[in-house]
Amino acid sequence: MIRVLLVHDACLVRSVLADWLRREPDLGVYDTPWRSAPGRVRSVRPDVCAVDLDCSDAYGLPPLGELGARAGGAGRPRLLVLATASRPGLLKRAIEAGALGYVDKAGSPDRLVRGIRRVAEGERFVDDSLGFGFLKAAEMPLTRRELSVLSLAAEGASVAEIAGSLHLSHGTVRNYMAAITRKTGARNRIDAIRISQGEGWL
Amino acid sequence: MIRVLLVHDACLVRSVLADWLRREPDLGVYDTPWRSAPGRVRSVRPDVCAVDLDCSDAYGLPPLGELGARAGGAGRPRLLVLATASRPGLLKRAIEAGALGYVDKAGSPDRLVRGIRRVAEGERFVDDSLGFGFLKAAEMPLTRRELSVLSLAAEGASVAEIAGSLHLSHGTVRNYMAAITRKTGARNRIDAIRISQGEGWL
Repeated sequence: MIRVLLVHDACLVRSVLADWLRREPDLGVYDTPWRSAPGRVRSVRPDVCAVDLDCSDAYGLPPLGELGARAGGAGRPRLLVLATASRPGLLKRAIEAGALGYVDKAGSPDRLVRGIRRVAEGERFVDDSLGFGFLKAAEMPLTRRELSVLSLAAEGASVAEIAGSLHLSHGTVRNYMAAITRKTGARNRIDAIRISQGEGWL
Repeated sequence: MIRVLLVHDACLVRSVLADWLRREPDLGVYDTPWRSAPGRVRSVRPDVCAVDLDCSDAYGLPPLGELGARAGGAGRPRLLVLATASRPGLLKRAIEAGALGYVDKAGSPDRLVRGIRRVAEGERFVDDSLGFGFLKAAEMPLTRRELSVLSLAAEGASVAEIAGSLHLSHGTVRNYMAAITRKTGARNRIDAIRISQGEGWL
């Protein structure tokens, strides 16, 4: 029996997906929204966490690290993500969190079941159709520092506020913003935020 | 037999939801992503379009008008939306498009089936849990003109470019941006975009 914890924010969709997975006799299926996921990992002790990368929160980024897959040791769940090729930044986060399985939401639901079984055996499972997304994730041009600056700007912080919270000078923040605008091929700061959010980097 | 066209962008989720709806003997279920929805409305001639308001496209806004529900005459589908209270701007668009049904994605999937049956009879169906979202939709502070200005700004257009495409003077665009920032309670232009996107107004 494979214990699966399905993590998805919209209850309606999550319930139907979980019911659908329960038709498989070898799967024991639990489900949870993101906010309760870390607690459910501890209580359910799943073999596999199957996680939808799109949070319902407008700019929510999934706290994949909190699921504890990275460590990968005994008793840690293996991580499988439901992803789309159009959000390479989210794919990159899944890679960094040590995900073993990558199922394309644009594909057939049978792939999800096959992915869960493979990942439960500790093997990689990757949908080919996500290939272009991985390419874009690998090309992601911004450094971690530049992303911190841009995230604060996207929250509406001024140059002075960004400088204050990251302990940088105003000039350095302006230099970062100029580099970010250039590297993302944006016309200006707002355009850089738009592009980076669209790609799922922020 | 109620003919239902389910509109949702992620194939995996859509297939499972459609399968789940097909268990109901009185529903004839078809499904489509957004981009093919207007064509499928013409070929399938559904009684009800059940539409997920969250497009997969990062800032995609659902082209509800194209589904033809507004006119409501013979042969036009009735519109039911899957929505969340946290995106009041999308609720407002659904209201403007003449939707009869409003099902909360945070609720139980049985509500979707009940909603479809009610809407097929030409009756309103509204999940109470969306109430706060409707309140916020009613409070939406920006005029249509202000939203046009802000949408262009959010795409990275400069004041000059916005002025050019809306046939306004630079000063007028700046006045609009100042009014938008004030009305949304934002700290600055980027913050106004963030707030408006978060609420689903853009």
